[in-house]
Amino acid sequence: MTAPRRRILALTGGVGGAKLALGLARMPDPGALTFLVNTGDDFEHLGLSICPDIDTLLYTLADEANPETGWGRRNESWRCLEALAEMGADTWFKLGDRDLATHLIRSAALRAGTPLTAVTAQLARALNVEHTILPMSDSRIATIIDTPLGELAFQHYFVRERCEPKVLGVRFEGSAAARMPEGLEALLADPALAGILICPSNPFVSIDPILAVPGLRAALAASNAPVVAVSPIIQGAAIKGPTAKMMAEMDVPRDAVTVARHYGSLLDGYIVDTSDAHLVAEVEALGITAVATPTLMLTLQDKINLAQAALDFLTSVSESTAS
Amino acid sequence: MTAPRRRILALTGGVGGAKLALGLARMPDPGALTFLVNTGDDFEHLGLSICPDIDTLLYTLADEANPETGWGRRNESWRCLEALAEMGADTWFKLGDRDLATHLIRSAALRAGTPLTAVTAQLARALNVEHTILPMSDSRIATIIDTPLGELAFQHYFVRERCEPKVLGVRFEGSAAARMPEGLEALLADPALAGILICPSNPFVSIDPILAVPGLRAALAASNAPVVAVSPIIQGAAIKGPTAKMMAEMDVPRDAVTVARHYGSLLDGYIVDTSDAHLVAEVEALGITAVATPTLMLTLQDKINLAQAALDFLTSVSESTAS
Repeated sequence: MTAPRRRILALTGGVGGAKLALGLARMPDPGALTFLVNTGDDFEHLGLSICPDIDTLLYTLADEANPETGWGRRNESWRCLEALAEMGADTWFKLGDRDLATHLIRSAALRAGTPLTAVTAQLARALNVEHTILPMSDSRIATIIDTPLGELAFQHYFVRERCEPKVLGVRFEGSAAARMPEGLEALLADPALAGILICPSNPFVSIDPILAVPGLRAALAASNAPVVAVSPIIQGAAIKGPTAKMMAEMDVPRDAVTVARHYGSLLDGYIVDTSDAHLVAEVEALGITAVATPTLMLTLQDKINLAQAALDFLTSVSESTAS
Repeated sequence: MTAPRRRILALTGGVGGAKLALGLARMPDPGALTFLVNTGDDFEHLGLSICPDIDTLLYTLADEANPETGWGRRNESWRCLEALAEMGADTWFKLGDRDLATHLIRSAALRAGTPLTAVTAQLARALNVEHTILPMSDSRIATIIDTPLGELAFQHYFVRERCEPKVLGVRFEGSAAARMPEGLEALLADPALAGILICPSNPFVSIDPILAVPGLRAALAASNAPVVAVSPIIQGAAIKGPTAKMMAEMDVPRDAVTVARHYGSLLDGYIVDTSDAHLVAEVEALGITAVATPTLMLTLQDKINLAQAALDFLTSVSESTAS
């Protein structure tokens, strides 16, 4: 008889979350990992169904992520994009020739009626990714950013407008009618589920869309497994992306505590960076167990170290909750 | 006051027809050319709307045709196709990276509800093609080849099965409900229309689908302009494609006369190759004015020469009809 495998569920958005996801996947004994991924950034471009966060995670786990750009596929070329530009098409979204293969396969399968969950599993197999990647929903949900320019679909805000417009508000179109992906409820009820990890992704536009799927936040909270988040903010700054800029525009304190407060009662535990150790007491005052550990992930070893620290912390939170 | 421009309508399929189309377009004074193009080969592949004959013509006229392959775009690369192959997708249809740009632009526009005629005009502008390219219909028509393997969509027969299965029959799915493209009726009624040319394309799978659009054959026949075809058969053989093989399988004589007989009363004139000059009398016995001239098009000058000969013949047929 083998011991029951420890299962981990990790909620993640794009780049920042994918770094920790890679650390989890590259641990000596990663156990059985399931990633629950934001799809609020998904959009249609030139008739293609593009899922930026799922693709970032797929490419990262498949060792296909482009180290030069920070997005897209490794060893990429831009011949199609050049032809699109010559022919006057929109080229603000940089479609690489190899990346296009992913979008073509996905778009054709979705159009044929295959649910996004199944399409994502097919792409994971095609890229030799062994872990489970669940989109937050098979329904179409679109993160819409309200700005002084008007409402912008997320990729228009993020890529085309380079996060420059002030964020006046965020909403998740289609969310109310969405359903959790198949398989998530069974995982949450599985006694082998050791913990739920919220990766250091943008809370407002990467994790909130996931939590906005009806019933999902309550299902996470109701699970016997502890929920632990890693702060995306280090010393008041975001390593990547517009998190800190958004916090300033939302007029909330730009620190790790604000993110813990934002997740609130969902959290059993919270990880801040060593440089923010002085905030641990403030987080614990919210009724959330907190710990400080190095969270800046520059090397693969940094990612593995943080993954190990997060799993150790999950175990200790789990034991203190049970005791 | 300028003299009324001479307008020419040319019916064409893919490669063979596009050679004469290029000759017409490269003449010193090409006049106003309109091409009416077979779309029976059109198909969906990986969610993309592909129009092989329109693309062959667009690329040929834009000097973008690939001289190495005989299909697709010049200066092509295959990075997306390689990634598709690695990811286990269907790769029997060779999508080049630059060619993909055309399919992406077309597919997105069609999906947005733009008619194929308008999409084709947009692509022609994008590729700096000045002549008018009309699809034979904005409706979807699919040429289906009946074979001992069962019914095959045209590209499956032509590309995937390399024309190897015996042709038992041909039908044009969707044809009965199709309508002529906008603009064609006005052109046919225009007194400036000097002639209608049927390019040396496959009569059974390139020209017949055009003539099968309800009302189209009758509209051509009713036009005041003479209709002249160039034989795709030279000394019993087709220069390119399965025309001669199909004729053998259909158990009809494999010569230029059979093609003239096939078009029948639609034709006012017919052009055979110099090497088939002995067939002129046989064609004329059908009531069709015939002439022999070199029709093998190896060089650009060959194409221009045949275009000039065809226009001269159209003029002479026109004068003899009027007299």
